[in-house]
Amino acid sequence: MSDQDASLINGEEQKICEVLPFVDDDYGGVIVEMKTPMDNKSFVAALKYSFAQWRLQGKKGVWLNLPLSHVNLVEPAVKEGFRYHHAEPTYLMLVYWIPEAESTIPLNASHRVRVGAVVLNQNKEEKYGTLCGTGVWKIPTGVVDEGEDIFAAAIREVKEETGIDTEFLEILAFCQTHESFFAKSDLFFVCLLRPTSFDIQKQDLEIEAAQWMRFEDSACQPITQKHDLFKAIHLICSMKMEKRYTGFSTKRITSFFDDKLGYLYSNKQEDMNNHIS
Amino acid sequence: MSDQDASLINGEEQKICEVLPFVDDDYGGVIVEMKTPMDNKSFVAALKYSFAQWRLQGKKGVWLNLPLSHVNLVEPAVKEGFRYHHAEPTYLMLVYWIPEAESTIPLNASHRVRVGAVVLNQNKEEKYGTLCGTGVWKIPTGVVDEGEDIFAAAIREVKEETGIDTEFLEILAFCQTHESFFAKSDLFFVCLLRPTSFDIQKQDLEIEAAQWMRFEDSACQPITQKHDLFKAIHLICSMKMEKRYTGFSTKRITSFFDDKLGYLYSNKQEDMNNHIS
Repeated sequence: MSDQDASLINGEEQKICEVLPFVDDDYGGVIVEMKTPMDNKSFVAALKYSFAQWRLQGKKGVWLNLPLSHVNLVEPAVKEGFRYHHAEPTYLMLVYWIPEAESTIPLNASHRVRVGAVVLNQNKEEKYGTLCGTGVWKIPTGVVDEGEDIFAAAIREVKEETGIDTEFLEILAFCQTHESFFAKSDLFFVCLLRPTSFDIQKQDLEIEAAQWMRFEDSACQPITQKHDLFKAIHLICSMKMEKRYTGFSTKRITSFFDDKLGYLYSNKQEDMNNHIS
Repeated sequence: MSDQDASLINGEEQKICEVLPFVDDDYGGVIVEMKTPMDNKSFVAALKYSFAQWRLQGKKGVWLNLPLSHVNLVEPAVKEGFRYHHAEPTYLMLVYWIPEAESTIPLNASHRVRVGAVVLNQNKEEKYGTLCGTGVWKIPTGVVDEGEDIFAAAIREVKEETGIDTEFLEILAFCQTHESFFAKSDLFFVCLLRPTSFDIQKQDLEIEAAQWMRFEDSACQPITQKHDLFKAIHLICSMKMEKRYTGFSTKRITSFFDDKLGYLYSNKQEDMNNHIS
């Protein structure tokens, strides 16, 4: 969308146009959220008129959130210079950078995050779920939901797969792999949990059975022998039980990037608590 | 797209239609990649014909990769029942789940990953870059590129901001925050590096200056005092220098999810190396 387009619209169509519905973002840009249906021609006219205003106001990034119901506006938006940013099942987010200066539009999300949960009870038994139909006993695993804390996802997965309530202790390790789906990467966090209830009630449909398993027996499973990662998890748990291993526990903290509250995962939390309020 | 549609097309238009260009994925589905331009009508006909074949073949997920140049096909695809999965600046990925059974389409990426790099030299000085114009000395930070290892991103950011070559030692801690942009979350990994070259050459345009800073001086900066996360990083580095802290170092490993090679980050690597080939 050039300045010329904008002034043409300014001169000729200003009276019949309204600025598209938008809110300011925190970085000098605007977010357009289309809520009522609109035909392509009115949309393009309103878009050109809105850009004229936003340029005058020195706006930077223009985000355009198009719900699935507004799919007709995707093509005209791209033809006006918008580019895709990210998409979820129900909407597509496009973006347009107005200034001459280099874009500071944030990069898209690049990683999916998964958790695996090791639950150790006082008898040094691990809790295992089993994959339906495979006959392999494995620790509960699952994908961290959007907006969910890693430790909370581990607690949730254990509850869903076995009915056991747990308390999060530590991240023991994590693994990063690439091209997990298309160009996206995967982060898998191994979590150690302590049970606060003990009666297993298989809950998840994907799970065939759930049981407490002796730590030594879990080591003998072919899956533990075959896979580097399971072998490593088992070894780390051995060291942990002998108190020779320190994972990362949580602390509520404010991020310096955007002052958002989050969790810091680190070891030596007892020292940290004395220094950070 | 119903079975009825498919059989109609099967009977009446089969001769003039070809199956859309596709490759099989590893999970019983197909990936359609549109490379030559196509008008909407031919696309819908070819899509219906293709679905008839894929149903017969028992295919599950159908991925449709539409480059920006094929934006005209987004609306017809959605009208045929496709939903958005993810998008990058140059393409939109849509997906359609054929079976009656619950979809096993992987969730979209939910996290952006960032690194912060602490470089400690023999004199117990940290290396700092500074944000252009702010007058604040800070450690080099940056976003992990798609497909990039966390430790490699830390090495790259230090090189880009200061010209220093480094070797990765450990992840000291990490921080998870939410709604970093829209509904997406953020993982920030604090990396400890050892310099292998020492002459600072400021390289990045975003950086005003770069210098080695005495560890004690870096603690006195208002940014370290003000922000929980910087305070925590400083404290962790103090403990590390006194050999009272154990972060996570790397080991090449195969993930059990998809047999992809990746890196495991854990402590006690010396023990692991004796057990895992």
